[in-house]
Amino acid sequence: MKILVSNDDGIYAEGIFALVKELKNIGKVFVVAPDRERSATAHAITMHKPLRVDKVEIFGSEVTSFKVNGTPSDCVKLALDALLREPPDLVISGINKGPNLGTDVIYSGTVSAAIEASIYGIPAIAVSVASYEDVIFDYPAEVIRKLCEYIKDKEFPKDSLLNINIPALPKEKIKGVMITHLGTRKYKNCFHKRCDPRGKDYYWLAGEVVEDLMDEDSDVWAIHNGYISITPIHFDLTKYEIMDMLKSWRIDF
Amino acid sequence: MKILVSNDDGIYAEGIFALVKELKNIGKVFVVAPDRERSATAHAITMHKPLRVDKVEIFGSEVTSFKVNGTPSDCVKLALDALLREPPDLVISGINKGPNLGTDVIYSGTVSAAIEASIYGIPAIAVSVASYEDVIFDYPAEVIRKLCEYIKDKEFPKDSLLNINIPALPKEKIKGVMITHLGTRKYKNCFHKRCDPRGKDYYWLAGEVVEDLMDEDSDVWAIHNGYISITPIHFDLTKYEIMDMLKSWRIDF
Repeated sequence: MKILVSNDDGIYAEGIFALVKELKNIGKVFVVAPDRERSATAHAITMHKPLRVDKVEIFGSEVTSFKVNGTPSDCVKLALDALLREPPDLVISGINKGPNLGTDVIYSGTVSAAIEASIYGIPAIAVSVASYEDVIFDYPAEVIRKLCEYIKDKEFPKDSLLNINIPALPKEKIKGVMITHLGTRKYKNCFHKRCDPRGKDYYWLAGEVVEDLMDEDSDVWAIHNGYISITPIHFDLTKYEIMDMLKSWRIDF
Repeated sequence: MKILVSNDDGIYAEGIFALVKELKNIGKVFVVAPDRERSATAHAITMHKPLRVDKVEIFGSEVTSFKVNGTPSDCVKLALDALLREPPDLVISGINKGPNLGTDVIYSGTVSAAIEASIYGIPAIAVSVASYEDVIFDYPAEVIRKLCEYIKDKEFPKDSLLNINIPALPKEKIKGVMITHLGTRKYKNCFHKRCDPRGKDYYWLAGEVVEDLMDEDSDVWAIHNGYISITPIHFDLTKYEIMDMLKSWRIDF
């Protein structure tokens, strides 16, 4: 099994180390990841400046690894188009520190790296631990290793990826696995206005999370209730169900 | 009618001028747009540095306008959360120079500004002229003005936005309006590898477009055949149709 690993916390992040260490047990691992944290870059790609690629040897000599001065999507694109000799069997993005749930997924660099792989027709998984503090990556890494072994014999759904969130709980406290849809996770009071020492205003993105905890089939609910959440994701943003309604408007100019 | 306008080509781009000029005829226009071109930023948001907001007076004294050192999504978020006193009736992103079609929409800053508005529950439209050369924005701006008047009396579909692409053709050569789904528009040979004067390699994102021109209900087909394309878009990336299949896998760790 050839596995390409990327992330959006950057190649030196703890989460990617734990993931690579575990995946080395089941296959040949390649790493192409951003040279620094690139959170909330979404599906941004670098068009207006050149990308630099540097070989690194931080995961052991058996793991070919590159850091790139680009976004998670750039890394996966570069790996698949220019750096790897043949396509991998699987692309895994993570392990992200912090949740990638609900409405927020649209901003996620972690998920976008996996989306990029699925645009190339390669099975892909995005994985996050749903906490920013006291995160231990060992069990989440073990979960992903087991999932890789599990899906090896399955037919991976076309044009799809799996977005996985794992509660930051000890293994024995995790209640099970739920297949979920993306829930509602928005923000209120998003900006803090401040004044700099020269009297000029500036704004910090901040905001309190507002989650819909009543939607019991959602990823948001699953994480809040101690379950591992697996959400199937696709990249076709068409809202098919309102096409007929729009046609009935008979718009003309 | 209160209309917020943003874009990803930057506040000084020709397309936003043409749009604002036309929209001033039908309502009160506000502009909050990036201070420079931010193409292919997708839904990136700025978390790790403060945002600066500067008032500008380039659209006439009746149009309150701000430029922001952030992405299109930052601009819409800031406008709705911090800069406008009350929410607008409509958010329009554009007019973008160059198409935003098919698979590519996932990379689009233009579309992401409209998605951000629809996350806030506000009707939104993204608009692009499907060419990079010899673009005249007058007719596209007229199309959008008419569309705004048209949808004023309609119930705008919830959690949705409209992605509009207009062929770069004279008005009389445009064949009509099609309601479409996002087609397939991918790239091959994505990177050019070069060597800098110091002997170090770098990569430029490039690539030849590969479009599926046989899919006759798609936005890609519509533009190639001289139609204005209107695609309904949403921001729920869940692939609902494979949830049952995944449940049948009975994954456990």
